[in-house]
Amino acid sequence: MSTETHFDKVTLIGLGLIGSSIARALRQVPVAAHVVAADRSEAVVARVRELGIADEATTDLGAAVENADLVIACVPVGAMGAVAEVIGPHLKPGAIVSDVGSTKGSIVAQMAPHMPQGVQLIPAHPVAGTEHSGPDSGFPELFHGRWCIITPTEGADPAAVDRVAAFWQALGSKTEVMAPDHHDLVLAITSHVPHLIAYNIVGTASDLEQVTESEVIKFSAGGFRDFTRIAASDPTMWRDVFLHNKEAVLEVLGRFTEDLIALQRNIRWGQGDQLFDLFTRTRAIRRSIIDQRQDTADPDFGRGRK
Amino acid sequence: MSTETHFDKVTLIGLGLIGSSIARALRQVPVAAHVVAADRSEAVVARVRELGIADEATTDLGAAVENADLVIACVPVGAMGAVAEVIGPHLKPGAIVSDVGSTKGSIVAQMAPHMPQGVQLIPAHPVAGTEHSGPDSGFPELFHGRWCIITPTEGADPAAVDRVAAFWQALGSKTEVMAPDHHDLVLAITSHVPHLIAYNIVGTASDLEQVTESEVIKFSAGGFRDFTRIAASDPTMWRDVFLHNKEAVLEVLGRFTEDLIALQRNIRWGQGDQLFDLFTRTRAIRRSIIDQRQDTADPDFGRGRK
Repeated sequence: MSTETHFDKVTLIGLGLIGSSIARALRQVPVAAHVVAADRSEAVVARVRELGIADEATTDLGAAVENADLVIACVPVGAMGAVAEVIGPHLKPGAIVSDVGSTKGSIVAQMAPHMPQGVQLIPAHPVAGTEHSGPDSGFPELFHGRWCIITPTEGADPAAVDRVAAFWQALGSKTEVMAPDHHDLVLAITSHVPHLIAYNIVGTASDLEQVTESEVIKFSAGGFRDFTRIAASDPTMWRDVFLHNKEAVLEVLGRFTEDLIALQRNIRWGQGDQLFDLFTRTRAIRRSIIDQRQDTADPDFGRGRK
Repeated sequence: MSTETHFDKVTLIGLGLIGSSIARALRQVPVAAHVVAADRSEAVVARVRELGIADEATTDLGAAVENADLVIACVPVGAMGAVAEVIGPHLKPGAIVSDVGSTKGSIVAQMAPHMPQGVQLIPAHPVAGTEHSGPDSGFPELFHGRWCIITPTEGADPAAVDRVAAFWQALGSKTEVMAPDHHDLVLAITSHVPHLIAYNIVGTASDLEQVTESEVIKFSAGGFRDFTRIAASDPTMWRDVFLHNKEAVLEVLGRFTEDLIALQRNIRWGQGDQLFDLFTRTRAIRRSIIDQRQDTADPDFGRGRK
């Protein structure tokens, strides 16, 4: 590949699950000569120093981005505008600013106004994560085999897009370029609405008067426990996702509810054939996900046999 | 324990995931002197013989239960009545008939009329499984640490209930006794509605015109892939569950939808505090499930690190 994959200085802003996973990955692949970790939380900065996962760690975001070639904001999507405002005046011409947010239209709207001339804003979204959060939860293989979606806006420098793509490929990801709006719709169905319904069913379960919480917990292996994993994800991050991808989430949610009401009617009227047809169709999608190595083929995610 | 835990002859009817897991477990624990596998499918019977997981295998259900001390029906809940009708005349006085069905009120209604005098019907439900099905998918540890719910009807012999409980404990399960109706409500929230919404979102995703199936599959690691595992479960089994636990499923589904509409409204009106409160509350339930060892504490079910 002819794309320049080396950066002299990379600054990561926000050292949670994703930021600290990038930091750890950069210890393993020779992509960045110098890695700076910046976080507004003194506790996080102290922990990053203890863990030794960056060359430098600071709470001063402005100083952290000075002279950086690549800045990646890894904060909840609701905080991206504030980060951009703080770092904007400190960015050097030619710098690339990127992020890892789960919504993209909103990121562009929040960050673009604060980017000085000569700085390239190239938003990106690594579709990877776990239900854990904070600097201790990261690990360098998080992005291996996962997709990173890059969503340049019109007029973005193709060379900068290529460099961001090469960065993520170096971390083990596959990359795809997509318009921000399309990203937001795709993620509404593959991530945002699934999270919302997981949070919702856990809430419904804990509110049922006729079934005790102890029963819900004991008998969760019937399927419910899978939803609790997703519903244990970071509350701040997910609140922001829903507030910042409102249109696409409401659109997909409307379809989900419509389909669910149809299933409810099938059950009420004993229409077993319709249920059977859907339940057969959904198996094929699982097979494709496994064939494309986006999930394990082991029964029960492999946890069944310990 | 003073309960008699030994059975001279145990007959398993239906050698899918659950039946074949019981058969395999009975090879490891000295609970049954002689194990007969009965299945209407000749292919399944042939496979059971190849696997060598039972002492005898036959398609003749009537002959299979003759002289059996314990008969366990492991077929989809819609087939339980037919099984009971066939085996009823062949059961010996003193035999215990049980099952593993995911609904219990319907099992009692279907099977009880066919039980001859002197036979004890003691329904049970091991809350365990994977998304795979068929005689090859079973494994002996499937029930380790999982709960088995026993739902005797009024007038059941307590000694027979104790023997069924002891049987499941020998296979590694914890047991709880519950009324059939209460079981059906508890499982509606911990298993049946979670499966329904998983099937539903996979259907919604594959029907979206603006997002290709290829995109859904590629970016499924955002959360969607978890739902596809559950939605890959056996279609016949699950069709029957919904048709045979209609009342409880519709009741819980009504609450789920009501709660979801409220969340939708929170999103539309930007009510972040309500979202944050729910997302925080749901984390506690996950912790309890892990504390009670009903799920792994590993991030992403342990699959994240391979």
